[in-house]
Amino acid sequence: MNIKQIDGGITVSKGFSTWGLRAGIKPGKTNRDMAMIHTSAPATVAGVFTLNKVKAAPVKWDSSVVKSGEKVGAVVINTGFANACTGEQGLSNARATASLAASLLELKAENVLVASTGVIGGQLPMDAIENGVRQLVPALSTGIEADSLAAEAIMTTDTRPKKIAFEFELGGKVCHMGGMCKGSGMIHPNLGTMLCFIGTDAAIDKALLQKTLSEIADDTFNMVSVDGDTSTNDSVLVMANGLAGNAEITAEGSDYDTFREALYETLKYLSMRIAEDGEGATKLFEVTVNGAATKKDARLLAKSVVTSSLTKAAIYGRDANWGRILCAMGYSSADFDPDMVDISFISENGELVIVKDGIAAGYSEEKATEILSAPKVSALIDVHDGEFSATAWGCDLTHAYVDINADYRS
Amino acid sequence: MNIKQIDGGITVSKGFSTWGLRAGIKPGKTNRDMAMIHTSAPATVAGVFTLNKVKAAPVKWDSSVVKSGEKVGAVVINTGFANACTGEQGLSNARATASLAASLLELKAENVLVASTGVIGGQLPMDAIENGVRQLVPALSTGIEADSLAAEAIMTTDTRPKKIAFEFELGGKVCHMGGMCKGSGMIHPNLGTMLCFIGTDAAIDKALLQKTLSEIADDTFNMVSVDGDTSTNDSVLVMANGLAGNAEITAEGSDYDTFREALYETLKYLSMRIAEDGEGATKLFEVTVNGAATKKDARLLAKSVVTSSLTKAAIYGRDANWGRILCAMGYSSADFDPDMVDISFISENGELVIVKDGIAAGYSEEKATEILSAPKVSALIDVHDGEFSATAWGCDLTHAYVDINADYRS
Repeated sequence: MNIKQIDGGITVSKGFSTWGLRAGIKPGKTNRDMAMIHTSAPATVAGVFTLNKVKAAPVKWDSSVVKSGEKVGAVVINTGFANACTGEQGLSNARATASLAASLLELKAENVLVASTGVIGGQLPMDAIENGVRQLVPALSTGIEADSLAAEAIMTTDTRPKKIAFEFELGGKVCHMGGMCKGSGMIHPNLGTMLCFIGTDAAIDKALLQKTLSEIADDTFNMVSVDGDTSTNDSVLVMANGLAGNAEITAEGSDYDTFREALYETLKYLSMRIAEDGEGATKLFEVTVNGAATKKDARLLAKSVVTSSLTKAAIYGRDANWGRILCAMGYSSADFDPDMVDISFISENGELVIVKDGIAAGYSEEKATEILSAPKVSALIDVHDGEFSATAWGCDLTHAYVDINADYRS
Repeated sequence: MNIKQIDGGITVSKGFSTWGLRAGIKPGKTNRDMAMIHTSAPATVAGVFTLNKVKAAPVKWDSSVVKSGEKVGAVVINTGFANACTGEQGLSNARATASLAASLLELKAENVLVASTGVIGGQLPMDAIENGVRQLVPALSTGIEADSLAAEAIMTTDTRPKKIAFEFELGGKVCHMGGMCKGSGMIHPNLGTMLCFIGTDAAIDKALLQKTLSEIADDTFNMVSVDGDTSTNDSVLVMANGLAGNAEITAEGSDYDTFREALYETLKYLSMRIAEDGEGATKLFEVTVNGAATKKDARLLAKSVVTSSLTKAAIYGRDANWGRILCAMGYSSADFDPDMVDISFISENGELVIVKDGIAAGYSEEKATEILSAPKVSALIDVHDGEFSATAWGCDLTHAYVDINADYRS
């Protein structure tokens, strides 16, 4: 690897600062509920957003900013309300939030992104939002505490903050990339996912940044599923401010490859953290498909298995119910021959071949249960039909998922 | 209606007899686990089967029988093992089951259908199957007890048997139609569902019967979802033996309309019973979409809502979390304008407009919870974009679903 993981989060990149605090979006709660990201040098931005036809107001706002070609200076994030299905009022509240932050940071509203997550349908409490923005601007800082508080402030049903940082060299210049994300339920991204923010001090051409992000999102966030529900607010935003001083990457080549590797590892790491922290999850469930005839088939197969409610419930029960895996492959719409399929389970407790040529391999159920008892469980599937592979990430389906979602709004 | 619901099940039609008993497929259990259906006059048969690429051996056998143009005389059904992912041995076991029943009933093996449901992957215990077939043949009977025992013997995680019967007139002749089905988990049919058997004494042309069945399955079984998992064994079989003495229906017209109505009501009734008895379900959840631009859009929208894990968990929690409904519509791939959507909840406890023009209608949460507390809850959605409608049926997502599926095989 040409990249090195380091401590920290979004502020490891030069010029980026952040903070998270409680603005009081939902009265009676005590959690931090707003965060801000700032870059002292305006950043080239790329974004991928939900393909849900029902798009939240902040998604509409951010898409237009990303399309406009403007550089961005800040992002304002709130939890509690998703600002989705909120009509004209919702769009106007998103714009007002950007405008307020812009006026305090000496930017234009069009240089400020906004992001919301929480209950669909309710209007943002603008008094609390305004209060939050006014407190966040003077609090912006760099370092571990700032990174941690921001990552914490964007959580909803998440049980832990999710952040990552890498260092790499481009043309002799040390560059950085840091990011954070949130997401636990309504996770089945379609070109994006619930709120992910990446900052880098590398310089890269906007069109190239967008292309790279879109490609990598297909292999990372788009391969994660917690519950099959594609959110109205999914957004992945990457900001590149160029303060590392590298020669701007304008074409493919070794610098591009290094940058792409850093972005891939960042998004992959954060995707896996979302899967592992799926609502009610006790396990990270990773499914790798090898030997597919096309990349598309590999992706369809891996994602269908990781999304199957029955497979997920069996993983929770540490039950090697491989029939459900073959069944989910069968309805995935991918092309393969069921009689050619091999399946193994792998975890820190060992590895076991469960299916050979589409039928039971005569394995030990006790050993299978032991393997499935680990906190990370992988299914390795070979369809012996070609050379393409894909990996998808999900989690188990548990009683706690039902608890969390039977009465989420109260 | 030209048809009248009557007491009974599959044996209301002349010439049909049935029985269900315990053959001992899984040692140590006490449930009835095998059933047989017989028609004294060979019946024209139509079938729809799972589109899962992984097809169980009985599905392969029955498809070839239905395609061959042979009339059928009997169906042998077992629970315990699905005879799916069982390779050559599985196919040979399916054929042996049909052959044994054929020899005892003076039929050819090609006149006998077989159906299996249960765990994927294990081979059928042929001693128990043979024992069951030998006991079933002499036990075949007509009437309520026979109908009830057969419907009970095909259950797996179902909590109650599912059967229905209708009477109707064709050209002055009294005709009958009766049926039974099973299904509770792995329910997300794609042109078929877990084991449904319909018998009628009306005479109808084979091609017309198949066309009618395929069309109606799209509006009934294909609109049901319990958990999004399309089974390897889904089969709907309709047998018409002509013993009512009506002039064979060979073209569309008033006789065809009456027959179609009977088949539609039969399949609709049985579909709803499967949804209502979904694994762990406490409620039947019905979603009707009106005003869609095309039939396909209406179906996609209704089925996406009824399949959403988040919506189903909210229905369990009696939480009018309508944002999840709009969200599920948004990722359905159907065409509609989110700002035109109206949504109401309806049950025996009342009716309430929840969403008007895509945003909250200012309803009482208390009243909504009261409506959602009924055993059958309907969501009525209007997208104001055309004249097409569709209805889908599902159930809530509960703790019990996780219990049932975390360790189904033991």
